[in-house]
Amino acid sequence: MLFLRILPFLGSFVSLIMAIVFIFLVRKQSRGTEKMKEISNAIFIGSRAYLNQQLKVISIFFVVLTALLGVMIKFNYLDLLSIPAFATGMGFSLLIGYTGMWLSTTANSRVTQAAKEKGLGPAMNIAFTAASASGLLLATVVLFFTSSWFNILYWWYGRFGTTQVVILDNVVNILITFTIGASFTAFFMRTGGGIFTKAADMGADYVGKVESGLKEDDYRNPATIADNVGDNVGDVGGMKADALESWLGSIVAAEFLGFLAFRNSPLILESIILPMIIATGGTIASIIAIFIIKSVVSRYKEDTTVKMLTGTTLSGMLTTVIILSIVSYFSVKYVVGTGYNFLFYSSLAGLVAGFLIGLFTLLYTDSAYKPTRRIAESAKSGPATLVVNGLAYGMESTILPALTVMSAVLFSFFVSGGLGNYQMGLFGVSIAAVAMLSTSPFIVAIDVYGPIADNAGGISEMSELPPEVRKTTDKLDAVGNTTAAIGKGLLIGSAAITALALGHAYFSKIELLNVDIVLDFIKDPKILVGLFMGVIMPFLFTSLLIGAVSRAANKVVIEAREQIKSILGNKGKGDPKKFITIITKDAQKGIIVPGILIFAIPIVVGILLGPGAVIALIIGTLLSGFAQAIFMSNAGGAMDNAKKKIEEEGKSGTPEHMASVVGDTVGDPLKDTAGPSMNILIKLISVVSIQTAVLVVDLSGKLFHF
Amino acid sequence: MLFLRILPFLGSFVSLIMAIVFIFLVRKQSRGTEKMKEISNAIFIGSRAYLNQQLKVISIFFVVLTALLGVMIKFNYLDLLSIPAFATGMGFSLLIGYTGMWLSTTANSRVTQAAKEKGLGPAMNIAFTAASASGLLLATVVLFFTSSWFNILYWWYGRFGTTQVVILDNVVNILITFTIGASFTAFFMRTGGGIFTKAADMGADYVGKVESGLKEDDYRNPATIADNVGDNVGDVGGMKADALESWLGSIVAAEFLGFLAFRNSPLILESIILPMIIATGGTIASIIAIFIIKSVVSRYKEDTTVKMLTGTTLSGMLTTVIILSIVSYFSVKYVVGTGYNFLFYSSLAGLVAGFLIGLFTLLYTDSAYKPTRRIAESAKSGPATLVVNGLAYGMESTILPALTVMSAVLFSFFVSGGLGNYQMGLFGVSIAAVAMLSTSPFIVAIDVYGPIADNAGGISEMSELPPEVRKTTDKLDAVGNTTAAIGKGLLIGSAAITALALGHAYFSKIELLNVDIVLDFIKDPKILVGLFMGVIMPFLFTSLLIGAVSRAANKVVIEAREQIKSILGNKGKGDPKKFITIITKDAQKGIIVPGILIFAIPIVVGILLGPGAVIALIIGTLLSGFAQAIFMSNAGGAMDNAKKKIEEEGKSGTPEHMASVVGDTVGDPLKDTAGPSMNILIKLISVVSIQTAVLVVDLSGKLFHF
Repeated sequence: MLFLRILPFLGSFVSLIMAIVFIFLVRKQSRGTEKMKEISNAIFIGSRAYLNQQLKVISIFFVVLTALLGVMIKFNYLDLLSIPAFATGMGFSLLIGYTGMWLSTTANSRVTQAAKEKGLGPAMNIAFTAASASGLLLATVVLFFTSSWFNILYWWYGRFGTTQVVILDNVVNILITFTIGASFTAFFMRTGGGIFTKAADMGADYVGKVESGLKEDDYRNPATIADNVGDNVGDVGGMKADALESWLGSIVAAEFLGFLAFRNSPLILESIILPMIIATGGTIASIIAIFIIKSVVSRYKEDTTVKMLTGTTLSGMLTTVIILSIVSYFSVKYVVGTGYNFLFYSSLAGLVAGFLIGLFTLLYTDSAYKPTRRIAESAKSGPATLVVNGLAYGMESTILPALTVMSAVLFSFFVSGGLGNYQMGLFGVSIAAVAMLSTSPFIVAIDVYGPIADNAGGISEMSELPPEVRKTTDKLDAVGNTTAAIGKGLLIGSAAITALALGHAYFSKIELLNVDIVLDFIKDPKILVGLFMGVIMPFLFTSLLIGAVSRAANKVVIEAREQIKSILGNKGKGDPKKFITIITKDAQKGIIVPGILIFAIPIVVGILLGPGAVIALIIGTLLSGFAQAIFMSNAGGAMDNAKKKIEEEGKSGTPEHMASVVGDTVGDPLKDTAGPSMNILIKLISVVSIQTAVLVVDLSGKLFHF
Repeated sequence: MLFLRILPFLGSFVSLIMAIVFIFLVRKQSRGTEKMKEISNAIFIGSRAYLNQQLKVISIFFVVLTALLGVMIKFNYLDLLSIPAFATGMGFSLLIGYTGMWLSTTANSRVTQAAKEKGLGPAMNIAFTAASASGLLLATVVLFFTSSWFNILYWWYGRFGTTQVVILDNVVNILITFTIGASFTAFFMRTGGGIFTKAADMGADYVGKVESGLKEDDYRNPATIADNVGDNVGDVGGMKADALESWLGSIVAAEFLGFLAFRNSPLILESIILPMIIATGGTIASIIAIFIIKSVVSRYKEDTTVKMLTGTTLSGMLTTVIILSIVSYFSVKYVVGTGYNFLFYSSLAGLVAGFLIGLFTLLYTDSAYKPTRRIAESAKSGPATLVVNGLAYGMESTILPALTVMSAVLFSFFVSGGLGNYQMGLFGVSIAAVAMLSTSPFIVAIDVYGPIADNAGGISEMSELPPEVRKTTDKLDAVGNTTAAIGKGLLIGSAAITALALGHAYFSKIELLNVDIVLDFIKDPKILVGLFMGVIMPFLFTSLLIGAVSRAANKVVIEAREQIKSILGNKGKGDPKKFITIITKDAQKGIIVPGILIFAIPIVVGILLGPGAVIALIIGTLLSGFAQAIFMSNAGGAMDNAKKKIEEEGKSGTPEHMASVVGDTVGDPLKDTAGPSMNILIKLISVVSIQTAVLVVDLSGKLFHF
């Protein structure tokens, strides 16, 4: 038992060592010319400036929320330890985002330099090594802090000498506050970063490429630095905070449900430890896969096709899945015993579902397959037809992942005997989510790899390196697009399952309060209204976020138009920093209203319509948010790759290409701002609901007159 | 009592007389020059050709479905009378679509001629008179056939001398088959017409306006006739079949729920008659409002602004609402007695909700308000920003209507004492839907008015009339866009409430079979999966329909490009008929898969996951479909009006205008193909589920092993 409790620390330690080695490997590479260093530095400074500004907004929210927590503690709705748990959750989410950005900017110019001097293989290896370090640092933080908090809390509440059930009840409740902290930062990082990156991208692209006929990342376009900063703050910082939150959320949800399912069993402690063991297994599996990929990739020559590179990535993913399957089998066997083999089947269902979602994402966003090819072809009849096609395929692409998630949920529920003991069934479902997400270190590696390659391309262009270098980095970038899409697919798939588990956790929490909830959306319209509210939540948040992007993008366009005009007319130099200031301000403004709503809505719905409506809200948000996220992420990914395909065909500058640029630009805020924020939305609503459950029940009991 | 049963016939008769008078008034106007007549005829012939082709596909489906009904009758799942009921439902839906198209093509060139000779007021009056005749014919059919079927069935089953409950049970069940027939034709008319109209529009616009720099409806663009045909088959034929289905559906749903709520009451017959009386009241209210509008409109001079015209339309709508409120009060008082006054409040809730949804639609789609103005402004930073903005505002626009519908549902449920007697509460909800839809004759009038004005503009352009004429018709068209959007908003709002009522009807039907359903989406993942399936249904159907539009549009573009090239090069004449053939074929192909799925999915879900999952499917489709429909309809409407605003500012031909044309073209299939088909989707799924309920319960009982 003690060994099991120590194991995650060991995993954490191993992955930290590996990460440090990787960082060392990256840093010993040359950063290239002075110009390249300068650009890379400018990107880092811009990213830091953004993050500092974001820190201010987050701090204000932190103070307000801590005050609210304080009030809840005062009235005995929460325990005092909630505050440090909440604070560490927020802090480590920020830390993970920050280190990710630092690592990416450390690597970017080095990748460009390697592409110039050593060729495709070594360049890709450096990008992937830096990205892997990012993924492993994530594992370090997740394993270390979930285990630390668990052990600290277990010891702390154990001092009072009550029963194990009471101790663990306290433990899992505080762990949820820990998750809220992480989710909350992730929400800000993801949405703020998403607004930043797309406002910069849309503005820079439109004025640069469409209006002025400059190439992507042309050094004469002063908005380009902001665009590259955006890649870091959105696709690295935001994405990593999101991944942290997802993985953490799935572990804590499983612990909560394990606690409920094993309440009357001697295996209660083991059931709570199992998710952490699977997470440790996933870390080990990821490390092995990373080594395999690294050794394969470093030998690649210039003639390697994008398809081969994508294939390599996929085989790495498959490796992780296979190893983790084996590890899960033994984890279940040794932690809870072969009597609970169904938990292994559940984890298998999660892993297979995750891999399938990845494949479906590929099918709908990779230009090797019909949807993206058709979208590219429709460029012949203009931008509108292309966009319409992109949206249509995006909608179509929701079907298979939805069916996959549904099958995984049904399978793991029934195989875990959910029909007789629904809490055990739900624990099975949550184990599926944990398994799916425990490949996170590898997924994050292939995901962070994308923006590093993107940045490397930008630096090559801005430093006016020979076009061959750009060609190499473009190949790296094309793989990055696909892997990023796979990562997004996986995150939303697992988010759906985790949120489902959290919805159940909420239900159980209410049940424990002896409040009777009848979830009948036919006989009780309050439940129906809760579902309805949930279904429109993604529409509300998408409109808020995209609205913010478009406001900021508009300002970028106006500023860029002026600056480019004077640059091209040799009348002055551009001021890249001005863009960062403009966008940072707007991005921060853009997240305030969503940030308030995400807390207010579950509480208001709970107080007005009762806890049953809150569960309905969670489920409605989850179902609708899942569909919207897949739709937006794949529509955007497919249109992006359709544009790349047209460029590969040498049609840059043609009306077809222009049409595809419009499509890409429409898809951008969908796939990088609104889409990815959905999974945090659905989970944050769940955890906020859980944490305010007792409060809501009390208040709604007082106000509730229907 | 006898008087009450005769009243709807009287209403039907009055509206028929009025319609005939209106048709006479329209037909006595001059059709204009030979050229104008020729074009008007070409539009009519094209529309008829399309309809004939559609008739073939519908006939095949009719035969297959009748055979299936036959099998169900053979095994005693249905009564023999289902077949004639189904057939009349289908037939009258077709008839209504056909007469609407005939009337519109009768009026279009006459409106142009009036615009040329008599000016704005008389032109608008003619368009509105023809549209009103359309609306009144709808009322004639709805009132006559619901009452006829009701009386025939009541007499037929009465012959066997059983209790009134048994008689009425049979009656309402057959009435539902009647609705299925109407819904099914409406589904084909709406989706087929929607695919046709937008394929033609997108193709004609892109090649004509964007590629060749021609004006809208330029006589040299041979795809223009197809575009004008599209307005008729989609926005008139499809819309009218849709309106018929909606109104009919709401009446029958209310009758079914009235039957359930009053099963043990002596007022059972009265409760079933009440919805028909309210519908009659709505017809009378509409006639009065039509007269008021006609007298105001005919006096308008050239200087009348679009805003004034929109205001007139709105005041007409308000008039209908006020009169119908008063009528409802007396209907409830004299049909079921003052003890059931809450039914009056429910109808009031429905009317107010309908009016509010109309206002919110205006707010989000009229260029007098911020969203559309902002969308138009964003044209300055290119087509992508404009589309992104359009999508974002479209998503935002779902919130207020959703809150309105939710409030109306909650209010009418609680005011009808739903907490103690949920079936009475649901009857209240269904009465709200009936009231909302009983303004249909007027709504259809202002809705059909749009395509007539649109056609009139097309004819003026194609006949090379002086630009002042086009200016006048453009004003008429601009009002038409807004009123069409209001009509769409109302239809989807009422569809949501009706589908809800139908979902309840399904539930009650299952309950009557003594099957126990626990609708707990937390403890039973089958219910959750049903909800999930429902939520993704709109995504599936949207992608299928839009995919069909874009395939057909592509063909139109290729053909138009060739034809215009040879026309502009004076190398040949265009062949407008070829477009109609191409699009008709593709439109018919495009509706086959959705047509099969809409029947198959509820049955498959029912058999595999049980009847509880079917209810969840209905509710999931309803919630998600509502949000999607409003989103698509308003996003499209706003982008259309943003384009019109830019044109009004005299910016035609500028990059801003081009950007807005792209936005309009993206929005078109959303607002006119996918969006409007959502309300039929959600209702058809409900009625198919109800009709196959017994079958599904039997089969799932045999197959169901979970």
